[in-house]
Amino acid sequence: MSNEIEIGRGKRGRRAYTFDDIAVVPSRRTRSTHDVSTSWTIDAFTFDTPIIGAPMDSVVSPASAIELGRMGALGVLDLEGLWTRYEDPEPLLAEIASLPAESATQRMQALYAEPIRAELITRRIAEIREAGVVVAGALSPQRTAEFYETVVNAGVDLFVIRGTTVSAEHVSKAGEQPLNLKQFIYDLDVPVIVGGAGTYQAALHLMRTGAAGVLVGFGGGAASTTRTTLGVHTPMASAVADVAGARRDYLDESGGRYVHVIADGGVGTSGDIVKAIAMGADAVMLGVSLARATDAPGNGYHWGAEAHHPSLPRGRRVQVDQVGPMQQILHGPAISADGTTNLLGSLRKSMATTGYSDLKEFQRVDVVVTPYE
Amino acid sequence: MSNEIEIGRGKRGRRAYTFDDIAVVPSRRTRSTHDVSTSWTIDAFTFDTPIIGAPMDSVVSPASAIELGRMGALGVLDLEGLWTRYEDPEPLLAEIASLPAESATQRMQALYAEPIRAELITRRIAEIREAGVVVAGALSPQRTAEFYETVVNAGVDLFVIRGTTVSAEHVSKAGEQPLNLKQFIYDLDVPVIVGGAGTYQAALHLMRTGAAGVLVGFGGGAASTTRTTLGVHTPMASAVADVAGARRDYLDESGGRYVHVIADGGVGTSGDIVKAIAMGADAVMLGVSLARATDAPGNGYHWGAEAHHPSLPRGRRVQVDQVGPMQQILHGPAISADGTTNLLGSLRKSMATTGYSDLKEFQRVDVVVTPYE
Amino acid sequence: MSNEIEIGRGKRGRRAYTFDDIAVVPSRRTRSTHDVSTSWTIDAFTFDTPIIGAPMDSVVSPASAIELGRMGALGVLDLEGLWTRYEDPEPLLAEIASLPAESATQRMQALYAEPIRAELITRRIAEIREAGVVVAGALSPQRTAEFYETVVNAGVDLFVIRGTTVSAEHVSKAGEQPLNLKQFIYDLDVPVIVGGAGTYQAALHLMRTGAAGVLVGFGGGAASTTRTTLGVHTPMASAVADVAGARRDYLDESGGRYVHVIADGGVGTSGDIVKAIAMGADAVMLGVSLARATDAPGNGYHWGAEAHHPSLPRGRRVQVDQVGPMQQILHGPAISADGTTNLLGSLRKSMATTGYSDLKEFQRVDVVVTPYE
Amino acid sequence: MSNEIEIGRGKRGRRAYTFDDIAVVPSRRTRSTHDVSTSWTIDAFTFDTPIIGAPMDSVVSPASAIELGRMGALGVLDLEGLWTRYEDPEPLLAEIASLPAESATQRMQALYAEPIRAELITRRIAEIREAGVVVAGALSPQRTAEFYETVVNAGVDLFVIRGTTVSAEHVSKAGEQPLNLKQFIYDLDVPVIVGGAGTYQAALHLMRTGAAGVLVGFGGGAASTTRTTLGVHTPMASAVADVAGARRDYLDESGGRYVHVIADGGVGTSGDIVKAIAMGADAVMLGVSLARATDAPGNGYHWGAEAHHPSLPRGRRVQVDQVGPMQQILHGPAISADGTTNLLGSLRKSMATTGYSDLKEFQRVDVVVTPYE
Repeated sequence: MSNEIEIGRGKRGRRAYTFDDIAVVPSRRTRSTHDVSTSWTIDAFTFDTPIIGAPMDSVVSPASAIELGRMGALGVLDLEGLWTRYEDPEPLLAEIASLPAESATQRMQALYAEPIRAELITRRIAEIREAGVVVAGALSPQRTAEFYETVVNAGVDLFVIRGTTVSAEHVSKAGEQPLNLKQFIYDLDVPVIVGGAGTYQAALHLMRTGAAGVLVGFGGGAASTTRTTLGVHTPMASAVADVAGARRDYLDESGGRYVHVIADGGVGTSGDIVKAIAMGADAVMLGVSLARATDAPGNGYHWGAEAHHPSLPRGRRVQVDQVGPMQQILHGPAISADGTTNLLGSLRKSMATTGYSDLKEFQRVDVVVTPYE
Repeated sequence: MSNEIEIGRGKRGRRAYTFDDIAVVPSRRTRSTHDVSTSWTIDAFTFDTPIIGAPMDSVVSPASAIELGRMGALGVLDLEGLWTRYEDPEPLLAEIASLPAESATQRMQALYAEPIRAELITRRIAEIREAGVVVAGALSPQRTAEFYETVVNAGVDLFVIRGTTVSAEHVSKAGEQPLNLKQFIYDLDVPVIVGGAGTYQAALHLMRTGAAGVLVGFGGGAASTTRTTLGVHTPMASAVADVAGARRDYLDESGGRYVHVIADGGVGTSGDIVKAIAMGADAVMLGVSLARATDAPGNGYHWGAEAHHPSLPRGRRVQVDQVGPMQQILHGPAISADGTTNLLGSLRKSMATTGYSDLKEFQRVDVVVTPYE
Repeated sequence: MSNEIEIGRGKRGRRAYTFDDIAVVPSRRTRSTHDVSTSWTIDAFTFDTPIIGAPMDSVVSPASAIELGRMGALGVLDLEGLWTRYEDPEPLLAEIASLPAESATQRMQALYAEPIRAELITRRIAEIREAGVVVAGALSPQRTAEFYETVVNAGVDLFVIRGTTVSAEHVSKAGEQPLNLKQFIYDLDVPVIVGGAGTYQAALHLMRTGAAGVLVGFGGGAASTTRTTLGVHTPMASAVADVAGARRDYLDESGGRYVHVIADGGVGTSGDIVKAIAMGADAVMLGVSLARATDAPGNGYHWGAEAHHPSLPRGRRVQVDQVGPMQQILHGPAISADGTTNLLGSLRKSMATTGYSDLKEFQRVDVVVTPYE
Repeated sequence: MSNEIEIGRGKRGRRAYTFDDIAVVPSRRTRSTHDVSTSWTIDAFTFDTPIIGAPMDSVVSPASAIELGRMGALGVLDLEGLWTRYEDPEPLLAEIASLPAESATQRMQALYAEPIRAELITRRIAEIREAGVVVAGALSPQRTAEFYETVVNAGVDLFVIRGTTVSAEHVSKAGEQPLNLKQFIYDLDVPVIVGGAGTYQAALHLMRTGAAGVLVGFGGGAASTTRTTLGVHTPMASAVADVAGARRDYLDESGGRYVHVIADGGVGTSGDIVKAIAMGADAVMLGVSLARATDAPGNGYHWGAEAHHPSLPRGRRVQVDQVGPMQQILHGPAISADGTTNLLGSLRKSMATTGYSDLKEFQRVDVVVTPYE
């Protein structure tokens, strides 16, 4: 049935679903986990896993970016975080983890008021590059014009432009000169991943800018409160499926250019990774799932850029359970059964049990809509 | 799909939605918050914000009406509250805030049994008028005939007639002479805002009386229990969208008279304001959101007229978190991320992120139906 | 839209709704509460209220049946309860109220194992009759053949046959001779109310037996666990609307015989009474709502016959809040706002606010489907 | 209405229902419980009840298999559990019941790492056989090739192949030689029950292998977390109804071979048994319902094979309330009203109240879809 609903005489809206609303179902075939591949290729880069560490200070530091790369994943450093504002952010990360709840937002607003230093961007990127892993860094659209040359010259392999919403068409009445994404991406030598986008239309327009990948989401992560503060919400199962529909239509329109769909937000367990790919995602960007690592830079806490906005914080520093080192979170063994460890083992088991051998095929798996009991 | 449901063979009903059931979604355009206007004009009066303080003793006193006016909002004084029954209600407001829960209803029933004094109506209105802000006062339909001349002579700019339900057609068998709204509004020199109405039909009939604005709601606020006591409930998202549909149809029918739709009830966070306007509201009437101010007259408590009905109380005095002064609630900065402060900043951010520049345009924003996780 | 759903390939079922799923909505008319009548007439008997006290030992004793009658309601005595098994049940009612939770079921199984005595049936009915109120008594279908002559000779005005399910067609292979309802009702001089029935078909067949009224429900009350134990559940809003549909069709089929629809179960607040009538009920049978009275025989506890079944208890003795005397529960004044006191005042207010003047008209009121927030 | 939903542009899925979403409704007929039969016949074996004890160490030991057989049920011994790995598992079962929560998974991983001994399989089966009850044992598909000859030679009456998912078509690229179910079942002398399957297609293919019965489910039991870990979930009401649809279609396709549908997972109360059969199940496999017995081998704890997977545990050892001996759980009397005791009495009462006399007829009973209040 169609999913457009008449809310009242003056308004209609589509019914949209979260990952919690859906589940994968096995069908008539099964397969051995040994025959399953989770590898993912974007542009010239191939990874053993479709896992991307989110550009958040609680998740990716230069050290954890290197570690993620060695484990077959990709860590994206936030180039507007503490690592590019301070010579040595380690004590500040420790301080954030020790702040009492009532003053955390205000102290973080102060810490992130320190200016970004271009030479620190260069130094952090170089540090990751020296380790021999794929290098990725993220800027917000507001800062991209100011810092992209520094970033490209420092030698990133993948350039990420990430805001709560990024549109292909930013309208401005004032003198402000917004980023022309299409021209910018055309001029750049490195592939660009851009987002978040939450709808078919928004994603289709981003694909037309020449992006290599689109992030799907709108601050929907564990540390975000945008639904309460802004009234804005992007239920992830529907959003990923919509953007996957845009990818298919854009493939036809462009005569064959495949733009990667990356679920960014709301992916908190191994089951969520499975569902994101079942909805059509090529890869997933993980925040809280990796912040749970004992060796994550957040030291048991997790926060995003929204948490320290100077006048309109739209997220919180949240405490997370530390469940094991990053290696165990990604590759196991799991010693509990809550979907927080052995993420890749779970993904492989889920693919095997439903009879699929690679991620692209697994996007076709059957799903049911069923609210959590 | 149609939203009429067969409940059983003998009864059908429409599926209706609350603000919690919906969310706004960004689309392909974004905009700078600097290019966004939240101004609202009704009749000859223009406000910087679409915010109206509800006529409840916990929200609007003469002092807070003046303060709201200076911040670009409109405060409506309850002309049947403590301020028109007592020379000095401040000690009584303090007493209400100190009552133990078990005796609060009974003591409030006693306090509000004191008669209304016409000369106090005159004096309170004069006090607000002298401050140079727009003056608005509210009467219930039951008392309007008795006191409206006093109110108009005292010099209100906007006259509010507000009950849990106000209809254009009050049927009476007994000698009782109900208010003829159409004649009343025609005879009056000042614009009238009237409600609550919860359906397309009820609102359309109120529009035909010549009202400048219609309040949408039915005691649906934070302090109300009408669903439990009366079985009556008006899910706000559907109600606002229905009444916005009536506004559109009445525009056509009347050859161009635009009646303002004001969401009154269930608007507890900045996200709810966003959703009310997305459903088609021109402005919102706030109760609990403003009662949370440290300088609100309720001193950390909130209650409506239903809470002290002599024989059938249909609401409660509820304790609310005090989150900051009224200025910070409306204009920020927010120091938490729960949608209780910087309401206007959140509204502007939401409009910018979805690419709209004024409130009228923003009524067209896309929404999804998705129950809260 | 149709409400039949494919659960899976081999099974379809209808979507059904509880009172909590619906709410009444005001429309374009209002009315004064003074012009509203709640009177109800069945056969030769007219009552000021559509309220029936359920035949449960925690709700109706001879004394409370008289009290209900004097307040314009009808109390139905359970003729298989403690009052017809014991000379003086008062100490046993007090004992039940003092039993620890873990032994309550077993002790009640023992107390109700005592045989029913015909002379006590006669005496209890006489006691109520002497007070000059309408007399009603209830038997289960299993005991009706054995005791009905005693009951009729004792002089009941209304005869109630009540089980969790009563069907017009009880199939038996063994020698067992089931009650032939149609013949039984035809032979009887007094009007019969029979149930529970939960569906259109079941109710239509009961109507064809000549019953004056049909009880709608299936052990759905506050003290019942039939959904957990038997997997059986009758969502009340849909059930009442279905049976009201059967009443309408039977009116046509019978050439004008009007069978009363009585909601029995799940009516716990004044809002539920409003909704039951909005769904098409002519009257409501109250259990827990009256057990909350300080002068109810249950002394703050409530239980049904299912709670002491010798081998398969399907309900519990539940503790209830005592909110005031029965007079205050029915006619107010309410001193709280939770729908447990002034039930009739709430019903009248709800009818007035939606513009209806009697119960039959009020069955047409508009409703919405909206899950509780 | 159809139950296929567009989740987003790129993905559709069916709406699926759990047992909690549905309820059985009485209709126009009732019947005496004495006229109701709960007998179930599969192949040459007839049981007084449609109850199967699940092959889990917390539920079925040789002793409890014998006890179940004597009470008219069937106990299936897990031939890969502690009883075939250890000479005397009683002390280990006691140890598991005494493990602290934080180390339970790890200790169980160690205990179940002990190899399976063929001679213990032979001895356990012989022990049950000597008691004169029907003998059933279960292997996982991975171990079936290795041990089936031992099992068949030991003399089982019913052979169960049970995994979280079992498919008729296990695809393998590597040298691995998967079990050819069709050939295997054809060659075997004893009837085979196989599963779990969760969809129409999967079940239809299993039916074509020649299986006598199909288990419906996917690790959906009380001790399982597959939805969180794998993203896989099989809502049981829809799954059983789908597989019952496959049974009907296969009956036609095969010219009359009737394959039994056995609900396996999510059957925790007597109400769930009723619903499983209402959805089309011929029998139910019980885990937690029997683990609640004071004489169950789990000593108040319950766990499945997923709980001790060496690298990817997908379930937990859960503590359960001990409600009475197995005899009382199956045949009563019930002394509480929570659906955990007198399972068969409840089933009989439910069948009687809806007018059905045997299990096959009862599969046609009317149901409603209504989420739990």
